[in-house]
Amino acid sequence: MTMQRTPLLISRLLDRGAWIAPETEVVTLTSNGTHRQTYADTAARAAALANGLKDFGIELGDRVATFMWNGWRHLELYQAVPSMGAVLHTLNIRLGADDLRYIVNHAADRIIFVDADLAPLLERIVGDLPSVERYVICGEPGAGPWESSLPNAVDYESFLDGFSRNAAWPEFDENAPLGLCYTSGTTGNPKGVMYTHRSTYLHTMCEAMTDVLNLSGADCTCGIVPMFHAMGWGIPYAATMLGAKQVMPHRFMTPDRLLDLIVSESVTISAGVPTIWQGVRALLETDPDRYDLSNLDRLCCGGSAPPLSMIRWYWDRYRIEMIQGWGMTETNPLGTVSRRVAKHSHRELGEDERFANLGKAGLLSPGLEMEIVDEGFRPLPHDGTSIGELLVRGPWVCSEYYRDPQPDKFRDGWLVTGDVAAIDEEQYLIIADRSKDLVKSGGEWISSVDLENHIVGLEGVALAAVVAQPHPKWDERPVALVVRAPGAEVSADEVGRHCAARFAKWQLPDDVLFRDALPLTTTGKIDKKAVRAALAAEGYVLPELRTEA
Amino acid sequence: MTMQRTPLLISRLLDRGAWIAPETEVVTLTSNGTHRQTYADTAARAAALANGLKDFGIELGDRVATFMWNGWRHLELYQAVPSMGAVLHTLNIRLGADDLRYIVNHAADRIIFVDADLAPLLERIVGDLPSVERYVICGEPGAGPWESSLPNAVDYESFLDGFSRNAAWPEFDENAPLGLCYTSGTTGNPKGVMYTHRSTYLHTMCEAMTDVLNLSGADCTCGIVPMFHAMGWGIPYAATMLGAKQVMPHRFMTPDRLLDLIVSESVTISAGVPTIWQGVRALLETDPDRYDLSNLDRLCCGGSAPPLSMIRWYWDRYRIEMIQGWGMTETNPLGTVSRRVAKHSHRELGEDERFANLGKAGLLSPGLEMEIVDEGFRPLPHDGTSIGELLVRGPWVCSEYYRDPQPDKFRDGWLVTGDVAAIDEEQYLIIADRSKDLVKSGGEWISSVDLENHIVGLEGVALAAVVAQPHPKWDERPVALVVRAPGAEVSADEVGRHCAARFAKWQLPDDVLFRDALPLTTTGKIDKKAVRAALAAEGYVLPELRTEA
Repeated sequence: MTMQRTPLLISRLLDRGAWIAPETEVVTLTSNGTHRQTYADTAARAAALANGLKDFGIELGDRVATFMWNGWRHLELYQAVPSMGAVLHTLNIRLGADDLRYIVNHAADRIIFVDADLAPLLERIVGDLPSVERYVICGEPGAGPWESSLPNAVDYESFLDGFSRNAAWPEFDENAPLGLCYTSGTTGNPKGVMYTHRSTYLHTMCEAMTDVLNLSGADCTCGIVPMFHAMGWGIPYAATMLGAKQVMPHRFMTPDRLLDLIVSESVTISAGVPTIWQGVRALLETDPDRYDLSNLDRLCCGGSAPPLSMIRWYWDRYRIEMIQGWGMTETNPLGTVSRRVAKHSHRELGEDERFANLGKAGLLSPGLEMEIVDEGFRPLPHDGTSIGELLVRGPWVCSEYYRDPQPDKFRDGWLVTGDVAAIDEEQYLIIADRSKDLVKSGGEWISSVDLENHIVGLEGVALAAVVAQPHPKWDERPVALVVRAPGAEVSADEVGRHCAARFAKWQLPDDVLFRDALPLTTTGKIDKKAVRAALAAEGYVLPELRTEA
Repeated sequence: MTMQRTPLLISRLLDRGAWIAPETEVVTLTSNGTHRQTYADTAARAAALANGLKDFGIELGDRVATFMWNGWRHLELYQAVPSMGAVLHTLNIRLGADDLRYIVNHAADRIIFVDADLAPLLERIVGDLPSVERYVICGEPGAGPWESSLPNAVDYESFLDGFSRNAAWPEFDENAPLGLCYTSGTTGNPKGVMYTHRSTYLHTMCEAMTDVLNLSGADCTCGIVPMFHAMGWGIPYAATMLGAKQVMPHRFMTPDRLLDLIVSESVTISAGVPTIWQGVRALLETDPDRYDLSNLDRLCCGGSAPPLSMIRWYWDRYRIEMIQGWGMTETNPLGTVSRRVAKHSHRELGEDERFANLGKAGLLSPGLEMEIVDEGFRPLPHDGTSIGELLVRGPWVCSEYYRDPQPDKFRDGWLVTGDVAAIDEEQYLIIADRSKDLVKSGGEWISSVDLENHIVGLEGVALAAVVAQPHPKWDERPVALVVRAPGAEVSADEVGRHCAARFAKWQLPDDVLFRDALPLTTTGKIDKKAVRAALAAEGYVLPELRTEA
């Protein structure tokens, strides 16, 4: 053919960072300061790492696992492993022993890189991981020598030592596997999504578009979303391609350390789940004059929907744009984003209309397609009110799970997302709920997400979860669980009145329960399954159904 | 494989514009006003056009040619023809009869869409175009019925009439041809570059990146670069994908009409060759208070290097960023762009350092690779002074010419560009010259581009060309041809002194000749070949070599 058929390999994008910005820094928090190295160092160390892995016997397609926080060595693995043609398998450090055991065995990882402080979590199950031939321990600078009972354990720096700091990355098919990430399945075993070079290459280009995350080489990114989660939302790859400064928190993720890091490194864009930004907001409200956030421009927020009140708070107070997005591990993960101004017609909008849009999951990324369908798989109108199962397809959407195809999750070339959503006339996606979290009452649907986001907007509320409880007449009725903000004294009545101001009577929670905390998933979302399980364990019954003892 | 193998077809990107921004306008200048239609209309008319072409018998891979100005119907063809799987062949309306005849026959175009005012140019050669079965004439609104002696001529609106305004675009291989563009070859016949869906899809995504053209759906683009030239620099496709407002000048390209259009339609980004922006600048200087350019944010400038003095003038006067870029028809065309701030280290730069960067051709687009080599094809240092032949490769770079492979233009997977360049330590590309335009004097190279850009920076100079003239001792010596600005009285001595302030004595032009105008190529660059031919025709001899008659 007349145009070059250059394969879309991630090595070709990642090499650009060290090439155009060799002196730009990669900064990682440590217990008493920061670790700093340049892109030139990072690329050279990634080359030595790849040469070390090759010497160890890692071949095209072999799984190389990480069990690590966000940090410079994790970034070296992000670059080296796929560039050499092996598969980067990012293990979720917050998983329980059973899931972890299943995943390592299912992936047949040959080698695991593990942060020294996390090694004890692997030691518990090390006897059950026959595929793993070696553990490479990443010690913390200045923390002294690590100790571990993991067999064949070597130090990360020793593993690299003596290997050439140059690498000529191989060329291979762009559909070759690049990275593996398991989703915390709600039923059955965790399911693996195997990204390819082609899918991640295209995802990386998309993320760097103005109307998506507006990433630039001039940015300083701070990915708080774990790098073990859906390839860190693509930020490590896009930032490396552009030569942007990268800042990583490692295990130091309390709001005060995050804010100190953002201020001291002049971070321009950060990314994390809503609970992170709720915590940061609480600290900023406590101590409003302490932090100079003038460099911070954008906060990406995904995993679950941020309350509109928080989006507006960051804008009104600091002119920080909170970019809400929707995606899944299965979509690499970027699907939609909502930006303040992304259409020509937005130039005419007032602030309130802009915020109405920012409260939605956003506009579809160029390259993807989406649809909502009814139970018969028939498309529903895009009118903002018709609600159906969300389908998505495109070149960075998965088509089957790794060695576990699950054909019911895919249909006619679409990924059946498990999310229930509307699409409005402006083609904004509006997530109503995970299909399993919708409350089915009297044949109508009640969105737990809508109720939660409304309740969190009430002064004095820190967190809220709404779950369905069984009801003999209505099938299910909603119950709200609320965590008060420190010192607040909000009452159940106030929550009820606040909801009644917006929702119809039949949509209001039958009960409001106060809790000191709510269980979170390993990726920082409220764990509805655990909330429901806890209610069941305590024998919870809806008020209307309670009988005298 | 585990990720969807969605083919990268341009239809999937272009559908997005009408989907997210159906009411956003496509505006075209007419002789007495503007023609306006929405993206929804444009997409519906593109569907009818495709259905009409199908009915006519156009099949996958057939060439559909355009001989047109920039306008709404050309945009409909840009969308319809590739989306249906045919090839959009944009004919250069400024070519001579011989080249035009060769190109239409070489491409074997089956149908040509032609603007009514351009039809006479085709009528001259219509007897020599046996492959063309039909001519479709695009009349100007309100201009009354057209007349033409072209055979089988039908009106554009009649051609669409009655066909369904819906289209389900077919799916086919992403390496299928999408568009065809011939380069005005310097030797031999014109050569065709056949873009594929894959190459243009990737190029479109790249152009929408923050660090490339920073295009957004909120933009209003005004592509002055002809749509017959290297697919209009990709702007019609990127703007349609994003749903940006698009404004097109049609044949009304005088500086006053362009400026009126930019002001009245609130254009945010425009694109054209340097001579366009020189003309616009001259008008702005004549009448500085007439135009409100507060919406205009970026001017893209390519085809040849804009003088740094002009880049700085637009910034100092209007805070308009002139984005210089380098590319070729063979690179789809975007290769490099130079932006005010595109690296983290740029945040620290002062204005003068930023302008030093803006005077270079720019940083390589993510996805491409480049190198400079000596005569032995050995890589040269990236030190800003070593000059060699520029090579480029990547997924939107051509690998052979259409039905005319020209293997000497390609080597080891690289396109041999014919440009001579340096790459500096910051990895900026600095174009020295087209290899055929370099002046070889005493074994050393003199860059005609450097001299020209310096001379144009002198007050009172409107245009300048530097060409080599034969010399028995030095091989070649440079001669400058200068067009004075209206009313200016700059002298040859002043030009000489201005050059001596920057260049070494042996690099200075041996002669400075004043001209009323300089010949331009069909794409608006100074035609050095014609300048040299004119000097030869008039029997020009270097001053030093003149003998008494």
